[in-house]
Amino acid sequence: MLGMSGDGRGGGRPHAVSASPVDFRVDPSRYRHWRVTIEGPVATLVMDVDEEGGLVPGYQLKLNSYDLGVDIELYDAVQRLRFEHPEVRSVVITSGKDRIFCAGANIGMLAGASHAWKVNFCKFTNETRSGIEDATANSSQSYLAALNGTASGGGYELALACEEILLIDDRSSTVSLPELPLLGVLPGTGGLTRLLDKRHVRRDLADYFSTRPEGVGGSRAVAWGLVDQSVSRHEWTEAVATRAALLASRSARPHQADGCTLSPLAKTRQEDLISYRHVAARLDRVAGAVHITVSGPGGDAPTGLPAIHRLGDEFWPLAVARELDDLILDLRINELELGTWVFHTEGDPARVLAYDRLLLEHPDDWLANEIVLYLKRTLKRLDVTSRSLIALIEPGSCYAGVLLELVLAADRAFHMAGIPEESGPDIEPATIIVGPMNLGPVAMGNGLTRLQTRFWGNPSALAAVEAHAGEPLPAEEAEVLGLVTFAPDDIDWDEEVRIAIEERAGFSADALTGLEANCRFAGPESMETKIFGRLSAWQNWIFNRPNAAGPGGALKRFGTGQRPEYDRTRV
Amino acid sequence: MLGMSGDGRGGGRPHAVSASPVDFRVDPSRYRHWRVTIEGPVATLVMDVDEEGGLVPGYQLKLNSYDLGVDIELYDAVQRLRFEHPEVRSVVITSGKDRIFCAGANIGMLAGASHAWKVNFCKFTNETRSGIEDATANSSQSYLAALNGTASGGGYELALACEEILLIDDRSSTVSLPELPLLGVLPGTGGLTRLLDKRHVRRDLADYFSTRPEGVGGSRAVAWGLVDQSVSRHEWTEAVATRAALLASRSARPHQADGCTLSPLAKTRQEDLISYRHVAARLDRVAGAVHITVSGPGGDAPTGLPAIHRLGDEFWPLAVARELDDLILDLRINELELGTWVFHTEGDPARVLAYDRLLLEHPDDWLANEIVLYLKRTLKRLDVTSRSLIALIEPGSCYAGVLLELVLAADRAFHMAGIPEESGPDIEPATIIVGPMNLGPVAMGNGLTRLQTRFWGNPSALAAVEAHAGEPLPAEEAEVLGLVTFAPDDIDWDEEVRIAIEERAGFSADALTGLEANCRFAGPESMETKIFGRLSAWQNWIFNRPNAAGPGGALKRFGTGQRPEYDRTRV
Repeated sequence: MLGMSGDGRGGGRPHAVSASPVDFRVDPSRYRHWRVTIEGPVATLVMDVDEEGGLVPGYQLKLNSYDLGVDIELYDAVQRLRFEHPEVRSVVITSGKDRIFCAGANIGMLAGASHAWKVNFCKFTNETRSGIEDATANSSQSYLAALNGTASGGGYELALACEEILLIDDRSSTVSLPELPLLGVLPGTGGLTRLLDKRHVRRDLADYFSTRPEGVGGSRAVAWGLVDQSVSRHEWTEAVATRAALLASRSARPHQADGCTLSPLAKTRQEDLISYRHVAARLDRVAGAVHITVSGPGGDAPTGLPAIHRLGDEFWPLAVARELDDLILDLRINELELGTWVFHTEGDPARVLAYDRLLLEHPDDWLANEIVLYLKRTLKRLDVTSRSLIALIEPGSCYAGVLLELVLAADRAFHMAGIPEESGPDIEPATIIVGPMNLGPVAMGNGLTRLQTRFWGNPSALAAVEAHAGEPLPAEEAEVLGLVTFAPDDIDWDEEVRIAIEERAGFSADALTGLEANCRFAGPESMETKIFGRLSAWQNWIFNRPNAAGPGGALKRFGTGQRPEYDRTRV
Repeated sequence: MLGMSGDGRGGGRPHAVSASPVDFRVDPSRYRHWRVTIEGPVATLVMDVDEEGGLVPGYQLKLNSYDLGVDIELYDAVQRLRFEHPEVRSVVITSGKDRIFCAGANIGMLAGASHAWKVNFCKFTNETRSGIEDATANSSQSYLAALNGTASGGGYELALACEEILLIDDRSSTVSLPELPLLGVLPGTGGLTRLLDKRHVRRDLADYFSTRPEGVGGSRAVAWGLVDQSVSRHEWTEAVATRAALLASRSARPHQADGCTLSPLAKTRQEDLISYRHVAARLDRVAGAVHITVSGPGGDAPTGLPAIHRLGDEFWPLAVARELDDLILDLRINELELGTWVFHTEGDPARVLAYDRLLLEHPDDWLANEIVLYLKRTLKRLDVTSRSLIALIEPGSCYAGVLLELVLAADRAFHMAGIPEESGPDIEPATIIVGPMNLGPVAMGNGLTRLQTRFWGNPSALAAVEAHAGEPLPAEEAEVLGLVTFAPDDIDWDEEVRIAIEERAGFSADALTGLEANCRFAGPESMETKIFGRLSAWQNWIFNRPNAAGPGGALKRFGTGQRPEYDRTRV
């Protein structure tokens, strides 16, 4: 039995409440709400929320209810199980409290939070739930929800993200989605979508279930597909162990392997600068923009699989993924008024491609696989980020392979044609390079690559791009192939880029969010994109309505003994 | 050259403005905004909006901008072209004004409208656009947008619903989606989705285009896929005629056929009752519910195809479709506080099935086809209606075939087991019957039948239901097969039904809308469901935000010379 490594938690108060920004960096030694134990191939995540440990003052985290701080720890635990524990083949999530698994998101927190905070909280929570499913599907680390007490709302939604759900049959424990009847909102973290599209609960039963605050337990919960098994108290421990062992036995994780320790992420945060080793963000509060620069590898890629394992979290792709991931989360919640993120890269594109190649040459290695999956998840965060994304391709940049995904994730990309007049003799015009990393491994939530989504319905354009894979593409060619939006020459460059950023800051922030959420997802939808699209958009609308968030709305009235005042108008 | 038949337009003022409810019944003799001409196989719909003809006082419909009244006429014209004009094989939509095709939805109307009105307006407009695509795809009546002037916002979105778009090249006419930059909202009627998923415009170009109020014209509009052809002024008339003739030449519409006249729909509207010949709605304002009763055929189905043509709009399935369609539209916009619609049927299920059979025996007949398609569209309206739908299956009901779709569209269905104690000797327990109409012809917007959607991910349950097609299924059996939600016996019936309706009225209207919008659409998404789901949900959210609808928001400030006051916070 052992815990997980690491150290270095930062502070953490939301911008709105304190000057200190929320910090997403944490490690098991600092957890206040979760315990992690590992026995052989099975890890157990015990949720045991510290009532007094809320991220923001003003509410108590009773009954294993959670806020962003609790979920930051869960996200960290899920990440570390993947990277630090190759031996873990199944993960049990259960509760350290008696008779309650988890009461869901804390209502006091929701009632007091700004609209933006609620939306950001749900987004991050959704991403962590999707990450649990990704670990099950792609890392052979299957999650088992062992509901040793009632799972309500977000508590049940956490269970829904697991591969299997066991519910204790003690004649009182149930699963429930009481958000609609009690709070006038939707289950905000994928519950409805997973009920229908993952567990295949019939729509009318899902409707009925979602209006019953008392929930459903026992054999009925099994019959409706809400849980997989209902287990009596005296058979509980053994049943959980048996299912966990069975899930573990199906895993393809290695039997003998050393984990990759995720050491504390070095980060400097100043008023106008956030910097890491390979990533730096300059915050331009006047323009409402952030300039994010990703540095390519400082040296040539190592050769051979052992190098990846030896370098661990120093390995450039993993280090960049961790830094970008943290930066995205930081900016999303702490810098709400910086509406445009402008990407820059600098370095040698050939080195980026060499690192990509090394990773992709070893798809059967658990760590190489984990690193690619982490890159995929980090890029997916960009796709659902409510900020305008602009990529600037200038001489000295290295948008190749995995870094080209920043261009493909962007709402617009500018690629400089030629070189600035004052350039030295060594400066070459900027090029971009399509590599194997762009053709499959880091797909979007819709299951397609960013290239496939970009050229949806236009297979010949996609084929033309694929035919140029590996070639350095200057601006004119990249524009013709449809890989970049505009290719201004060096004379027009500054003006065009400045206008694009200024214009963006002058538009309605909400309309931009809607525009981007629609334009980024051409083509088919998946359960994941339905959660971030259809479901989240409806939830955001409801969060913004007086029936939920107004002074007489259900979120404000909950727990006061007063009934909410509802406007019955159907919209 | 001839116009279209019909008579009998009602009044039409929105509930909020006048006591007189909006009436969706209209006919060409009363059009104020459209002219319909037919030459051989080509119909032309000329949009020539009467500035003073707004449905609500307070705005002028300048520059061919439209409000709900304009769109009610368009919907009527599209319907009549399908039913009354089998000879029409392609339809040209163009403008009767100089240099302007259509400026989109009227801003004064949008600025003054309630949130519910805006949402309802967009929904109906969306349904009409989808209906145009349905006519093109399934009725061999292809639409050609002949943009003889600038098409902005909703004007361009109307063009996007057409199969092909021609834009005049006069050095000033463009297509544009200026909603985001000018109004702080999204193109609300499918624009973004159709740009990406229908016309395959690249996402970054779509983003750029949607921020340019001046739009894009000429060869650039063609290169980006925004239009199909840019045509000089002197070639315009011929080019439009050529394309229209080409579209007509590909049509499978009959060459020799008499149309089916849609005579004025007889309707009585009182304070608490809306009634037609086969459909009646009792408005229970205390309970916040509407009881809708659909009567089955009054006699045996006729035999043979000629009977359908002879009966025309008296043919029971067509008559019911028209009445239900009108009722849905009426209740949606005029009765916002009646949040639950309770369906009842009465009649002989065998007769319903016989009518279904007669229709489905003649898939190649244009009129039989049109009637089935109309039933499909009408049922699809229910799927996107923001009202709770409950179906009650009681002795004497006739939920078979097409009427069983009301059960399958409902959020919950109650099926009485046994018969009430006081029943006479002739009363049989209620049964439902699955028929061929439930297995394909009236699919939902996601492309699946309601049964396939209901049993998404559960093919054995679907197979079990199909195996019982044609059998009268009593409550117990229907419940086991998963066709109904609950099967209370006659003793519990009244209480259970009453509680279900009462409870629904006590929930947050907004949360119910979100719940239903998610639960009704398990499984895959289509362009149509993306428009009504992802896109509309975001638009509704934006409509509700201060940046758009607040006192300093863009919708209110438009045209005042004052810039909107934007909160730059990104949510």
